[in-house]
Amino acid sequence: MTTTQRDRDLGTAYAMKPPHTRTELTSVVRGTPMGELLRRYWHPVGLTSDATDTPKKVRALGEDLILFRDKHGRVGLLHARCCHRGTTLYYGKVEEDGIRCCYHGWKFDTEGHCLEQPCEPDGGQFKDKVRQPWYPVDERYGLIFAYMGPAEKRPVLPAYECLETMDDGEFVEADDSSIGGGGPAVIPCNWLQHFENVVDPYHVPVLHGSFSGPQFTNMMASMPEVKFDKTPRGIAVRSIRKQDDGKVFYRVTEAVLPTLRVVPNPRVAQFARVESIGWTLPIDDTSFRIYVAGRVKNSGDIGRMRSKFNGKFWWDMTEAEHQQFPGDYEAQVGQGPQTIHSEEHFGQSDRGILMMRRMLTEQLDTMAADRDPIGVSFDASAPAVEFEAGNYIRDSSSLS
Amino acid sequence: MTTTQRDRDLGTAYAMKPPHTRTELTSVVRGTPMGELLRRYWHPVGLTSDATDTPKKVRALGEDLILFRDKHGRVGLLHARCCHRGTTLYYGKVEEDGIRCCYHGWKFDTEGHCLEQPCEPDGGQFKDKVRQPWYPVDERYGLIFAYMGPAEKRPVLPAYECLETMDDGEFVEADDSSIGGGGPAVIPCNWLQHFENVVDPYHVPVLHGSFSGPQFTNMMASMPEVKFDKTPRGIAVRSIRKQDDGKVFYRVTEAVLPTLRVVPNPRVAQFARVESIGWTLPIDDTSFRIYVAGRVKNSGDIGRMRSKFNGKFWWDMTEAEHQQFPGDYEAQVGQGPQTIHSEEHFGQSDRGILMMRRMLTEQLDTMAADRDPIGVSFDASAPAVEFEAGNYIRDSSSLS
Amino acid sequence: MTTTQRDRDLGTAYAMKPPHTRTELTSVVRGTPMGELLRRYWHPVGLTSDATDTPKKVRALGEDLILFRDKHGRVGLLHARCCHRGTTLYYGKVEEDGIRCCYHGWKFDTEGHCLEQPCEPDGGQFKDKVRQPWYPVDERYGLIFAYMGPAEKRPVLPAYECLETMDDGEFVEADDSSIGGGGPAVIPCNWLQHFENVVDPYHVPVLHGSFSGPQFTNMMASMPEVKFDKTPRGIAVRSIRKQDDGKVFYRVTEAVLPTLRVVPNPRVAQFARVESIGWTLPIDDTSFRIYVAGRVKNSGDIGRMRSKFNGKFWWDMTEAEHQQFPGDYEAQVGQGPQTIHSEEHFGQSDRGILMMRRMLTEQLDTMAADRDPIGVSFDASAPAVEFEAGNYIRDSSSLS
Repeated sequence: MTTTQRDRDLGTAYAMKPPHTRTELTSVVRGTPMGELLRRYWHPVGLTSDATDTPKKVRALGEDLILFRDKHGRVGLLHARCCHRGTTLYYGKVEEDGIRCCYHGWKFDTEGHCLEQPCEPDGGQFKDKVRQPWYPVDERYGLIFAYMGPAEKRPVLPAYECLETMDDGEFVEADDSSIGGGGPAVIPCNWLQHFENVVDPYHVPVLHGSFSGPQFTNMMASMPEVKFDKTPRGIAVRSIRKQDDGKVFYRVTEAVLPTLRVVPNPRVAQFARVESIGWTLPIDDTSFRIYVAGRVKNSGDIGRMRSKFNGKFWWDMTEAEHQQFPGDYEAQVGQGPQTIHSEEHFGQSDRGILMMRRMLTEQLDTMAADRDPIGVSFDASAPAVEFEAGNYIRDSSSLS
Repeated sequence: MTTTQRDRDLGTAYAMKPPHTRTELTSVVRGTPMGELLRRYWHPVGLTSDATDTPKKVRALGEDLILFRDKHGRVGLLHARCCHRGTTLYYGKVEEDGIRCCYHGWKFDTEGHCLEQPCEPDGGQFKDKVRQPWYPVDERYGLIFAYMGPAEKRPVLPAYECLETMDDGEFVEADDSSIGGGGPAVIPCNWLQHFENVVDPYHVPVLHGSFSGPQFTNMMASMPEVKFDKTPRGIAVRSIRKQDDGKVFYRVTEAVLPTLRVVPNPRVAQFARVESIGWTLPIDDTSFRIYVAGRVKNSGDIGRMRSKFNGKFWWDMTEAEHQQFPGDYEAQVGQGPQTIHSEEHFGQSDRGILMMRRMLTEQLDTMAADRDPIGVSFDASAPAVEFEAGNYIRDSSSLS
Repeated sequence: MTTTQRDRDLGTAYAMKPPHTRTELTSVVRGTPMGELLRRYWHPVGLTSDATDTPKKVRALGEDLILFRDKHGRVGLLHARCCHRGTTLYYGKVEEDGIRCCYHGWKFDTEGHCLEQPCEPDGGQFKDKVRQPWYPVDERYGLIFAYMGPAEKRPVLPAYECLETMDDGEFVEADDSSIGGGGPAVIPCNWLQHFENVVDPYHVPVLHGSFSGPQFTNMMASMPEVKFDKTPRGIAVRSIRKQDDGKVFYRVTEAVLPTLRVVPNPRVAQFARVESIGWTLPIDDTSFRIYVAGRVKNSGDIGRMRSKFNGKFWWDMTEAEHQQFPGDYEAQVGQGPQTIHSEEHFGQSDRGILMMRRMLTEQLDTMAADRDPIGVSFDASAPAVEFEAGNYIRDSSSLS
């Protein structure tokens, strides 16, 4: 086939070029550029309460893992397939000091050391020669974080001021239901389609405003004036909206590499610093979920941040209602399992997206040059990370 | 592995050669030989009533499209993915002069012109530089036709005498339930398996006669004498069956390229010219549907042409009944998602199939030589196409 | 990506090598090494009662076939796609001397000869020139066996002493519900994962003992002393377990190439020679089923050998119960659709598995050298094959 100038002038779909996805930015698989970049950071893989004496399946960055907690309270995150004959440890039994495979009873501790091989002479004379593949984990803010990258590059698990310093009566609560995703807990599209949304404040008055009725607060429904800036960890999005009383609603959202949503409550319950962090966990190349930890005054407050559409939860809506009242889920899953970058056309309002893609590309270059990507720290004594993110009321309207 | 002469003599399945499908005849994808041939003709993609202010998903020739009608009554058929960031326009809102994407509110008219970019300064100063991929459409006979090919090769949308000239009390009615397909509206096999069936009159007394009981009329249940001839648009199948009274039942069926079934009512309600046309729309390489437009005297007559098996509609039959009373659906879907041409063996009675494949191959050669395929017309003043197809009673039995 | 020595020392999953499956041992497709080895033997493809005048779908070694019995009682096993136009013979009608395709009525006998072509002049003058691909079958022990290999290599269908010589009141009964598979009739993983389990006596006291509670008998729950030996047909596994009364429980299990489980009743109902044979039929590369024939005294005895878990049949268990009481199904399907051989680590107790893989590899070499693989016989007068397999009580404990 050949297309002519007239086809291109008419702009019919017949004149479209072959589709292309920038998989170097989207794929999370070990050994790919983005897969390796993501593996230089800690990622949440479960709630603290997910690690029990019943093995739990975890899928993260395209890898199948098993999460458990031994009777000493230690959390283990092991490759799902037993290093003996490959049976999944999902059917294993958790014991005092490890997990035992159902097939031949090899037992592993939370760091993959093989403790017993009951079918072997003397309980396994060579058991030190095998090791169940595992990942280091740590618990913080009600979440279990895993580090899935190279040992020599393992950074400190960051602490965040917004989750360390409580206001009166506050405590930290965690949630795994993909608050902020606009739909169910597991969302069937590439993680970057969601993460880019964090640096896209312009969609708010459209998708969450005029389109489906104000999904957040009326204060958010007007088109903001926006400034995007690089931070030492990612991108800050500073929006101002002039209010009727002459004051200015000043809102700062941060996207922190590799996957953090530092987004103040869009329902603007209070004018204050950001109260929660969302981690966009890539499950694999075509699905993700969001873990959230936030300061609350009442148990369940995080869950109550969930959007409703036409007065209903997402899962209670009919197909016709999804079509009539689309939200983030519809907009992002509607881009397909992995969006087609070759078909995009950007405007001024997309400069946050472009800045994010450039920043991610720069990190890939940084990695290729054997340097550490943005925001990782190896200093265990570093202070907690402080964000600018929040909803504020100001008298002046300058965005400097 | 090597097979021996003895294997071949015995004819066991062990001696079978590797399977091969002639995808140059079956694949409907843009850029493939048949995909390009199909794109030189207009195809129905919906009923007139499918184009409303609620966007509707259409899949045709392997492409995902969105059909709608603006408030001025103009029909739009746009590439499903918004040219801005790729969100499907299925979640768009139809307005007076176009459709607006849910994500950032870009609005497009029915020819893909971008009318608004509400998140851009001044509503989008550069909006003329983008265009949503679209296809030209036209409405006729209760159907919406689309032209998905190169602009310079766009033919006239044909008119057909059998749908233009009414007998007393007749009007034209359209149907999208795949009348003639013998099953549900979407049929999970390649379109050519169905289209070849049109030039295969011999299966009628077997599949629709002795096998499942006469599915049509007893008059159709006897083996006909058949002559196949090329027409200026495809192939005419002329069958005669001698009747007990000495007269001759003369039936002409036409297959018109690229996908038209011009098949007189197989229940032979009357002896007359053909009353309907069926368009076999390839949805993609492994599914198709049929749109029909026909002259009727009562609303719903087209739907009443639907076959029953053992007194039941297809969807009410048990699996055992499908096995016992197979029809066109079972015979064609039973050939697999795309049939394996290397395993076929032809007889005299397959000469219609062979003629069709030669004709299609000739069209591919014609295209390769940069000439126009059979039956396309660029003359807007040409008279309506007249078919020979029909059921007739004759005194003489010659097929000349 | 590059992994460092520290990664390897730590043994994290980040240091894992790319996964590899030895498909030369697992794939059953015609033309592959194992596919060809499997095709040198007879395989059961149905119960005798499966062959009736209603065509039945059979999938074996990755091939889709149709099983039927003509009115003379002859069993036919034909390639599913009609050699005329490729419609499945599943919709065919069984007649006195063959099966007739629904589409154009070609009729084939049980050896694929074309008997009628009703749409052809004179009923098909050239019908001798086509042949429906077929496979030779034979009936024995309530099962239908097929030979799917090269004609010149077709061995005698073996007779087995354990199914030929009855004890008082015994008769042979067949079963197709995958007795021994620990789950449903069709098991979604590669056949070799199951077949290797036959030469793995060590898993018994773990998986079927301590793990899910004794699934068989207490006598089987202790760790045995085991010796593996090659036989003229495969591998014998000889286990002894010393009993409290000073006697010795001596159990011999045989794995007979290519797929036979010659396993005495694990519930040890009696001390005697083996009472049944199980054939592991590879359906395709990622699923299998088991046909069993055995000597019983009461109809249904074979079915009553089925394991229960926590007092329930497999299909009545909840997901939580499957996790808590895993059996062979969970252990083997838990290895994945096809296990990843590159991730395995063997111990002393795996020497049966290693012996089996070496033996299979030797057979592939034997085939490559144009010699016949182990256990095939072309001598129709050979005596029935006698197994050593059984549960026995002995006074002495030597395993010689």
